[in-house]
Amino acid sequence: MSRGRFVSETSFHVRYAETDSMGVVHHAVYLVWFEEGRSAYIRDRGWSYADIEKAGYFLAAGELKAKYRRAARYDQRITVKTWIEDLKSRTMTFGCEIVDADADAVLFEASLKLICLNAAGEITRIPKAWMAWINP
Amino acid sequence: MSRGRFVSETSFHVRYAETDSMGVVHHAVYLVWFEEGRSAYIRDRGWSYADIEKAGYFLAAGELKAKYRRAARYDQRITVKTWIEDLKSRTMTFGCEIVDADADAVLFEASLKLICLNAAGEITRIPKAWMAWINP
Amino acid sequence: MSRGRFVSETSFHVRYAETDSMGVVHHAVYLVWFEEGRSAYIRDRGWSYADIEKAGYFLAAGELKAKYRRAARYDQRITVKTWIEDLKSRTMTFGCEIVDADADAVLFEASLKLICLNAAGEITRIPKAWMAWINP
Amino acid sequence: MSRGRFVSETSFHVRYAETDSMGVVHHAVYLVWFEEGRSAYIRDRGWSYADIEKAGYFLAAGELKAKYRRAARYDQRITVKTWIEDLKSRTMTFGCEIVDADADAVLFEASLKLICLNAAGEITRIPKAWMAWINP
Repeated sequence: MSRGRFVSETSFHVRYAETDSMGVVHHAVYLVWFEEGRSAYIRDRGWSYADIEKAGYFLAAGELKAKYRRAARYDQRITVKTWIEDLKSRTMTFGCEIVDADADAVLFEASLKLICLNAAGEITRIPKAWMAWINP
Repeated sequence: MSRGRFVSETSFHVRYAETDSMGVVHHAVYLVWFEEGRSAYIRDRGWSYADIEKAGYFLAAGELKAKYRRAARYDQRITVKTWIEDLKSRTMTFGCEIVDADADAVLFEASLKLICLNAAGEITRIPKAWMAWINP
Repeated sequence: MSRGRFVSETSFHVRYAETDSMGVVHHAVYLVWFEEGRSAYIRDRGWSYADIEKAGYFLAAGELKAKYRRAARYDQRITVKTWIEDLKSRTMTFGCEIVDADADAVLFEASLKLICLNAAGEITRIPKAWMAWINP
Repeated sequence: MSRGRFVSETSFHVRYAETDSMGVVHHAVYLVWFEEGRSAYIRDRGWSYADIEKAGYFLAAGELKAKYRRAARYDQRITVKTWIEDLKSRTMTFGCEIVDADADAVLFEASLKLICLNAAGEITRIPKAWMAWINP
């Protein structure tokens, strides 16, 4: 999956509010976990996504591909594994795998291409200064 | 409930994502519906809460009281009734009643005191210009 | 997009809770709207997804592809257009396009393959009785 | 606040999806955190709320009182402190305080009365077996 790159891992329990009538986690919630995986990735590199926004940049969702493998349930402990899959001058693509923290069974896999925007909402080049946390 | 004041009504179907493992609507979702009720109230008065923020003001949650009466379920059609319960120089309190749109059975009742903030996040007086939508 | 098939349309205002710090709608929310589009599709055909679950079947998320075109904002009126893109014995794929209700600008496009499960959570054939709402 | 009773503490980072256009955490999210606090409380006592549901009982929201003290922001580390405030034959009331994990400033305080329901959705007595985790 990560082809030798840095992989961030963060673990937490499934919240009750994240389940739906089917008795399992609602499919939109995995995007929230993937996003928290990206936050953890940037934290692990000594930055915060908040710093990026303070500097006047935003990373906006562009294109998403996801596969749902197994259902997650309330109170289950899960791990979100996150890495950078691809990097271009104006976009970066994160990959993610969400697994059961104990059994290591894959629950969800996805990739999300993010587009770098400036404060005016225009597509812009990713600043060189970001390389410190992007490429460990 | 509304003591002769203007009451806004807005109706919609319960979304699947709003349910939880208990098979009913999650209790935090009613706050989102109440908020949509306040949005509808302001729209009904010819304004938008977006205009308020554009003018440099925010209405932040201060104090909440809520009673859960009956569970709502997926695809049920509900109506949110919203009114202004109290108005002071720096705060306004909205009241809300959420009912089954067909049976008129009460599902939820709440009041929320909002605090008027300026762009710096300081408590400030509610501008006089708002009276047009506050007091019909 | 829909190649002559039945397209359901449902419209509503963007809720404040659906926005994030970026000032626009959070990217996970579009999945909730797409799901509400599928609910509306089934309702338009005279059924409810609740009937499907009562009959002992579930439609679970399998594979998702999505493109984010333009940001949606608080109080904007949007329209979710939903159709059935593909139908196999055990899966059905919904397509969706979310547009600004007034300007008709495309905000989001996606397809989601759903897998038919029985009450035991096993993959099963889609019952023939569903054809009434699937193929108008 | 907790009057000598057992207080559970759980900490996590604010997720981006939990913020809104105001740049701070949406007010409904605190209910989700409070709920996660109750989950942590039961886990700390060696149980899981999932066990309660497996045994055929549900704890449904009845009455809520909440005060919003300070805004939480993206990536801030917060701590949810949770305790049992009151216990009757058919209801139990949880108390909660959400603080900044580093500064210990109070962000939110609330109490929620939960009603014990059986599988048929009828109000019922809280089983004696629960006392192990309720009263340490």
